Amino acid sequence: DHRRTLLKEKVFTGIFVYLWFQIICRYKNVWNIDLKFRPAFLGGVMKGSGNKSPAMVQKKFLYMGKDLSRLTDYFDVPLQHPADPIGVIFKKGSLSAMRFLTAVQEREGGNTKAEQVSRELFLRIWNEDKDITEPGSLSEAAVKAGLSESEIKELLELYTSPKMKDKLRSTTQDALDYGAFGLPLLVCHVNSKAEVFFGSDRFELMAHCIGEQTNTDHNDKNK
Amino acid sequence: DHRRTLLKEKVFTGIFVYLWFQIICRYKNVWNIDLKFRPAFLGGVMKGSGNKSPAMVQKKFLYMGKDLSRLTDYFDVPLQHPADPIGVIFKKGSLSAMRFLTAVQEREGGNTKAEQVSRELFLRIWNEDKDITEPGSLSEAAVKAGLSESEIKELLELYTSPKMKDKLRSTTQDALDYGAFGLPLLVCHVNSKAEVFFGSDRFELMAHCIGEQTNTDHNDKNK
Repeated sequence: DHRRTLLKEKVFTGIFVYLWFQIICRYKNVWNIDLKFRPAFLGGVMKGSGNKSPAMVQKKFLYMGKDLSRLTDYFDVPLQHPADPIGVIFKKGSLSAMRFLTAVQEREGGNTKAEQVSRELFLRIWNEDKDITEPGSLSEAAVKAGLSESEIKELLELYTSPKMKDKLRSTTQDALDYGAFGLPLLVCHVNSKAEVFFGSDRFELMAHCIGEQTNTDHNDKNK
Repeated sequence: DHRRTLLKEKVFTGIFVYLWFQIICRYKNVWNIDLKFRPAFLGGVMKGSGNKSPAMVQKKFLYMGKDLSRLTDYFDVPLQHPADPIGVIFKKGSLSAMRFLTAVQEREGGNTKAEQVSRELFLRIWNEDKDITEPGSLSEAAVKAGLSESEIKELLELYTSPKMKDKLRSTTQDALDYGAFGLPLLVCHVNSKAEVFFGSDRFELMAHCIGEQTNTDHNDKNK
């Protein structure tokens, strides 16, 4: 039962990260920013910072669920809870997906494909209730993201290599060095100063920090 | 050192509640709502829900401090950190202030004076670095809030009475019954449904819930 709660909380954390991804991608097109994705391993961040799951407080856990469903509704983010959240997907976690994204970035030397593959992986897990841990799943996401057959073949060889494992480990360490105790983490570099934002609920402050504005209208599906 | 961290975190929690109070008071005048204050005892909420301080994770604690200073800056809320946060104020906590506010509400049978006395107490502790635990301090806040000498005399007799202690205990229990695991807690009653909002960062969702809008401009002192 303890284990069950911890796994359910992984689901919530996953949805929070998914929500963050969807919102930051909207603002990326509106704000004058150069957004760079850095896949990192949540397990490493939690362990490295000594952070514990908040789910052990039952009332906090219940509130998180309510908060999440209100936020996804408000921001109009497509969400379908997995039928078996405790199942294989969450036991395996996002490690292979993060390694795959690391490989996508390494190969491209940029962000565009990593964003597209991220989106497809996020949609698989949070809207289509599909696996994201098997090579076949990563490959399907890459196809949807528009990557060619030969690219995908290369990526499937690359992503389990020691080099990609090391790169993901080093990005995770970078996050810890920036003060991470969880994910998502966004670092704004403004006037050679680094401002660190944790979580999916500080978009207003981010906007303020970079001299932009949030738009309470364009997120509101009822308008 | 453990104790020191826990006390420092009490300071952060206090500032978060102060921030919440200042922002909700701004929206109270803009939104079509009937805002009712319910003083509750944070210690009772933490104990009753089995919640623990987040301060034990050092990186989270450091981030909280940064987050707070950015939020108070963004929302332009006057803040001066107490010179000796570990001092007498925090060891004594907010219990007597909450009992005093309970008495103010009981006597008035309304909200107006409770809001004014709350504001003065908040400003004492978070902007003037003054005590809020002694009868003399409560009295000074009440004078500033415009209460008469005779009212204050009555309140000073009333606030330590068993009746007020019971009333505060019962409000704290109400908060727990609504699912509280910390404070501030706001309950929106819309279409005979109760929507519970925890913390000082869900004003956009609250606005959405009651069919109002947040204003990113009027909080921004640089505009």
